[in-house]
Amino acid sequence: MKILIIGATGTIGRAVAEGLSGRHAVIKVGHRRGDHQVDLASLDSIKALYRAVGPFDAVVCAAGLAKFGPLAELTERDFLLGLSNKLMGQVNLVLAGLPVIADRGSFTLTSGVLSMEPMAGSAAISPVNAAIEGFVRAAALEMPRGVRINVVSPPWVKETLAAMGMDSSTGQPAASVARGYLAAVDGAMNGIVIDARVYAGHGA
Amino acid sequence: MKILIIGATGTIGRAVAEGLSGRHAVIKVGHRRGDHQVDLASLDSIKALYRAVGPFDAVVCAAGLAKFGPLAELTERDFLLGLSNKLMGQVNLVLAGLPVIADRGSFTLTSGVLSMEPMAGSAAISPVNAAIEGFVRAAALEMPRGVRINVVSPPWVKETLAAMGMDSSTGQPAASVARGYLAAVDGAMNGIVIDARVYAGHGA
Repeated sequence: MKILIIGATGTIGRAVAEGLSGRHAVIKVGHRRGDHQVDLASLDSIKALYRAVGPFDAVVCAAGLAKFGPLAELTERDFLLGLSNKLMGQVNLVLAGLPVIADRGSFTLTSGVLSMEPMAGSAAISPVNAAIEGFVRAAALEMPRGVRINVVSPPWVKETLAAMGMDSSTGQPAASVARGYLAAVDGAMNGIVIDARVYAGHGA
Repeated sequence: MKILIIGATGTIGRAVAEGLSGRHAVIKVGHRRGDHQVDLASLDSIKALYRAVGPFDAVVCAAGLAKFGPLAELTERDFLLGLSNKLMGQVNLVLAGLPVIADRGSFTLTSGVLSMEPMAGSAAISPVNAAIEGFVRAAALEMPRGVRINVVSPPWVKETLAAMGMDSSTGQPAASVARGYLAAVDGAMNGIVIDARVYAGHGA
């Protein structure tokens, strides 16, 4: 299969690319790096990406911005960042990709465990992650031509915590988080929210 | 308590107003009717509402637009309607209301069962409802001064189905849906998604 990985230069995307590249043709898409570039916040940029890559079988998105911060300091603008980028970026990948994706292709999006397990500071992230999961559950009912759509919900990733200078002992290694994406791409599921923590302990 | 009901002229809002008005001072807010008017899609309009009503103890919102339609026909614009109106309208009611709501006051928002139980046609509504629930779960962790926040998830309402000329036999009467809102306002819960169907069979 020819698979587009959006966010392929990020921590999770890189691990997904490594996991898929043995048996699939992987096209790495980044915001500024990779084989192709895309601005998730722009539907025009997403359409241009699809025109540039031609026919494809699957899209994995492991990208998207949202704002973390105390509720008392969050503004309307902070909410709109996540809604326009992480949420609508992924929705638009599906809306613009549906007419061109191959029969029996698949979309695999990314939410995050803050959707159902919030923490102080996640008031503008939890709704974005929950919305992505709500979209996937609903859109799965109307996928044409055997196309599937699923979403992976990752916890804090060990390499991300380490890069932020935080305690990474509770983080899940990116290679095992990536297993959730591989299951969605290579499997038969549709409309599923995949908790990446079930793959903790599995290597790449 | 002095309670603002946003959407008080709608089917659910009217039933909530009736249920609360015996023991509380109810201020009815509508888009065009009611004691005060507000445009949920405008943060400025929401701020003007709070300035006009003065001190208050609770906000109930039973209003908000979102687009129902086949996935193949939905556009980015259809998603943005629900995000800017039903989602950000309710988020902004909280952001702008938090500095002025009374100690131990409460916000009670509205989502809908399509959040977790989608149907064909709900791809732009399910994410909005899920996002409202994600916001409430997260924001509840940071409410100051004993303020509480909850969300009621209503099913199809009997009176709404009848007004649309559809089979209303499976709909839940607005008076029993309203019981979920009354429980949120008069109770002690915080961060809860209240499935209004648990009140089916209860009258007003």
